[in-house]
Amino acid sequence: MSEKFHKYTLIKNDGKARLGSFSTIHGSFDTPNFMPVGTKASVKGVDHERLKEIGTQITLVNTYHLMLRPGEKLIKDFGGIHKFCSWEGPILSDSGGFQVFSLKGIRKLSKEGVEFRSVIDGSKHFLSPERSIEIQEALGVDIAMAFDECPDGRLEYDDVKKSLDITLGWEKRSLEAKQREETALFAITQGGMFKDLRTYAIEELSKLPFDGFAIGGLSVGEEKEQMYDVLSYHPQDLPQDKIRYLMGVGTPRDIVEAVHNGVDLFDCVMPTRAGRFGRAYVSGEEVFINIKNSAHATSNEPVDKNCDCIACKRYSRAYIHHLFKAGEMLGPILLSTHNLAYYLNLMKRIREAINSGSFEALYSDECKKAKWYK
Amino acid sequence: MSEKFHKYTLIKNDGKARLGSFSTIHGSFDTPNFMPVGTKASVKGVDHERLKEIGTQITLVNTYHLMLRPGEKLIKDFGGIHKFCSWEGPILSDSGGFQVFSLKGIRKLSKEGVEFRSVIDGSKHFLSPERSIEIQEALGVDIAMAFDECPDGRLEYDDVKKSLDITLGWEKRSLEAKQREETALFAITQGGMFKDLRTYAIEELSKLPFDGFAIGGLSVGEEKEQMYDVLSYHPQDLPQDKIRYLMGVGTPRDIVEAVHNGVDLFDCVMPTRAGRFGRAYVSGEEVFINIKNSAHATSNEPVDKNCDCIACKRYSRAYIHHLFKAGEMLGPILLSTHNLAYYLNLMKRIREAINSGSFEALYSDECKKAKWYK
Repeated sequence: MSEKFHKYTLIKNDGKARLGSFSTIHGSFDTPNFMPVGTKASVKGVDHERLKEIGTQITLVNTYHLMLRPGEKLIKDFGGIHKFCSWEGPILSDSGGFQVFSLKGIRKLSKEGVEFRSVIDGSKHFLSPERSIEIQEALGVDIAMAFDECPDGRLEYDDVKKSLDITLGWEKRSLEAKQREETALFAITQGGMFKDLRTYAIEELSKLPFDGFAIGGLSVGEEKEQMYDVLSYHPQDLPQDKIRYLMGVGTPRDIVEAVHNGVDLFDCVMPTRAGRFGRAYVSGEEVFINIKNSAHATSNEPVDKNCDCIACKRYSRAYIHHLFKAGEMLGPILLSTHNLAYYLNLMKRIREAINSGSFEALYSDECKKAKWYK
Repeated sequence: MSEKFHKYTLIKNDGKARLGSFSTIHGSFDTPNFMPVGTKASVKGVDHERLKEIGTQITLVNTYHLMLRPGEKLIKDFGGIHKFCSWEGPILSDSGGFQVFSLKGIRKLSKEGVEFRSVIDGSKHFLSPERSIEIQEALGVDIAMAFDECPDGRLEYDDVKKSLDITLGWEKRSLEAKQREETALFAITQGGMFKDLRTYAIEELSKLPFDGFAIGGLSVGEEKEQMYDVLSYHPQDLPQDKIRYLMGVGTPRDIVEAVHNGVDLFDCVMPTRAGRFGRAYVSGEEVFINIKNSAHATSNEPVDKNCDCIACKRYSRAYIHHLFKAGEMLGPILLSTHNLAYYLNLMKRIREAINSGSFEALYSDECKKAKWYK
C-alpha cells in the first residue's frame, strides 16, 4: 500500500536466519540490525557523528519520554524528530506502552487507554492507541509501534490471555488511527511464555496490514530458558515477507540466538548502560571485561583488539581504567561508544555470515562462549 | 642551553601584544594560545580527536592529581604522559603548588616542602621543589612548572612578602633539581597585588636560566580591577625573549586584556566547567547564553553562528536545551566542546590580528561588550 515510502526486502535465507533490508524515506537499513537506543532523542554519551562513524543505520526514540519533554508539538513545529535531533537516517519510535505499564501505582487503566502522571512534574497525561499514533506521527518517525500492553513475564495464563485480548484490540485501533503514509506501523505480538497465546497473537495480527511484526514481552523478568523457548518456535511463524523485530533484547548471545530463529531487528540499552558502568564487550572467549578491574591498570592493550572504534583505536585499557577510577566522564563516553561499535560489528558479521551461507558456524562459535551462561 | 629541545620565538609585536611560537619535541604551538585543562589527563567530556578537530595545540595536566592517581610511576612505566593519555602534542604540567595550598587544614608547611593527606584515601604525601620536578620529569611533560606557594589574593603586604621569599627559594631549588633536558622549566612570579614585590620577583627570577615565565597569584580571590592593574605593569617587565604564561586565567575578556599587555599563554577550567552547567560563549554583543533558558527551547539557530565545532555545525539551540533539561550527558559534552572551540578560535583571531597589526581594533571591540562587566 505505502511501499513507495517503506518496504522490507528479504534477500536471502541461511537456515532460519534472514538477510534483508528495510527502506524508508530517510534511507535503508540492512537486516539483521541493531538500533542504538536514544530514549530522549539522544543515545547516552554518543553524538550522532560518532554513531555514524561506528556504522549505525537506524536509531530508536521513545514516545513516552518525548511526549512529556519536550512534547511532540515542539518537535513537530521544528520539522520533525530527524531535524530536531539531527539524525538523517531512519528512526523508529516505541509506542510508550512498555513505559506506561512499568509506572505501577501512578497509572489508571481503562478500555479506552491509560491515564498516568508525569514523573517530571506530576501532571496528568493520557495514552491510548489513538493518542500514541498521533504522537508518533507528529514526531515524524519512519517506523511507529502499535500501542500494546506488556505483561510481566511471570504472570499466569489467564492474566496473560486477558492482557493479550486488550492488546489485540488496541493494536487494531492503532492501525485504524494511522494516517501518515510515510510512517510504517509495526504490530507487537504478546502472549507471554504460552505457545498457544503467541500463535493466537500471530493469527490475529497477521490478518491486518501491518508493515512489520515485533515480538514484545520478552526479557521482562522471565528465565532465560523461557525466552529461548519462545524464540525456538515463535519468530518462524511470523509472516515471511515482513520484517521481524525483537524488542528490548539483549546480550550479543541473545541476539545471535534470535537471528538463528529468524529475527531481523533489535534494540537494547545494554551496550550504553554497561559502558557507563565500566563493562566492555570484547571479542574472543572473554566476552566482556570490567575495565575498573585492577588487572587493566597497566595494560597497554586496546579494549578490543578487533575493534576500530575511537576507544580501541586511540586509547589503552590502562587509560580508560584510569578515567573510570578518576570519575572522568570520558570513560563512560568511550566505553558506550565501543560497546555500540561492538554490537554493530556483530550485526555486520552476522549479515556477512548469512550472505556467505556460514551463519551456523558463527552461531555455534558464539554458543560455545561459556561466560554467557554465568 | 637546551634549545634543541624547546625554544620560544618572538615573531612580531603589535603594541605590547606578541605573536610567537614555542617548539617542543612533541611539536610547536603558536602564541598567544590557550591550553584546555586536562587535570587528571582528560579534558572533561572532550576526547583527544575532538580536541584536535577544534584546533588544540597544547594541553595541561596536573602534577598533584596525577601523583595521587594513577601515580607518576605507572605513567613513566607506560612510556610517559603522551603515550598514556594518547595526546601527541605538547603537554604542560602544573607543579601542584596551587592545589596543595588550597588544601587548608590537611597540609603541613615547612621550609623543606609541604606534607599533605590524599583526598582519595587519606594517605600521607609530600611535595617539595625536588619532588615536584621529579614527578613532572617522570611524567615526561614538555613544560614543567616550578614549585611555588600561591598566596590568597587578599593577603596583606607582609604576608605576601614572606610567601614570596619562600617561593623564590623553592623556584631556585626547582631549577637545581631539574635533570631532563627535553622538559622546559618555567618560573612563576608571585607578589600578590603589590607592584614592588612583583618587580622584585622578576628581578630575582630573571637572573636564573628558566625557559619561560608564568604569572601566578592572579584570579585567586582579588577584585577584577586589581588583576587588571597588575596586568597593566607586570607582564611587560618579564624578559622579552621568553614566553609569558598567565596561570588559571580566565574569561575571554581577561585573555584579551592580558594579550594587550604582552601575555602569550593561558589555561582555565572555565570553558569546560561553564559548558557542563549550560553556559555557552557566543560571538557578538551577547557574549554568552544560558542554554537552559526557555528562550532557546524552540530556537533553530546554532549555539554560535560563527563557530564550526560539532555542536554548532550539527545541532540547534533547541536540541541542546532539551539535552540539558532531560539530563542527557550529550549536553555537557557538546557545550564543553563548543566553549573550547570558542576560546581557541578567539586565540586564532588574536594571532591573526597581531600578525596584521590590527590587534588594537580587536581589543577595543572586546572591551565594548558591556556584559563582561556585569
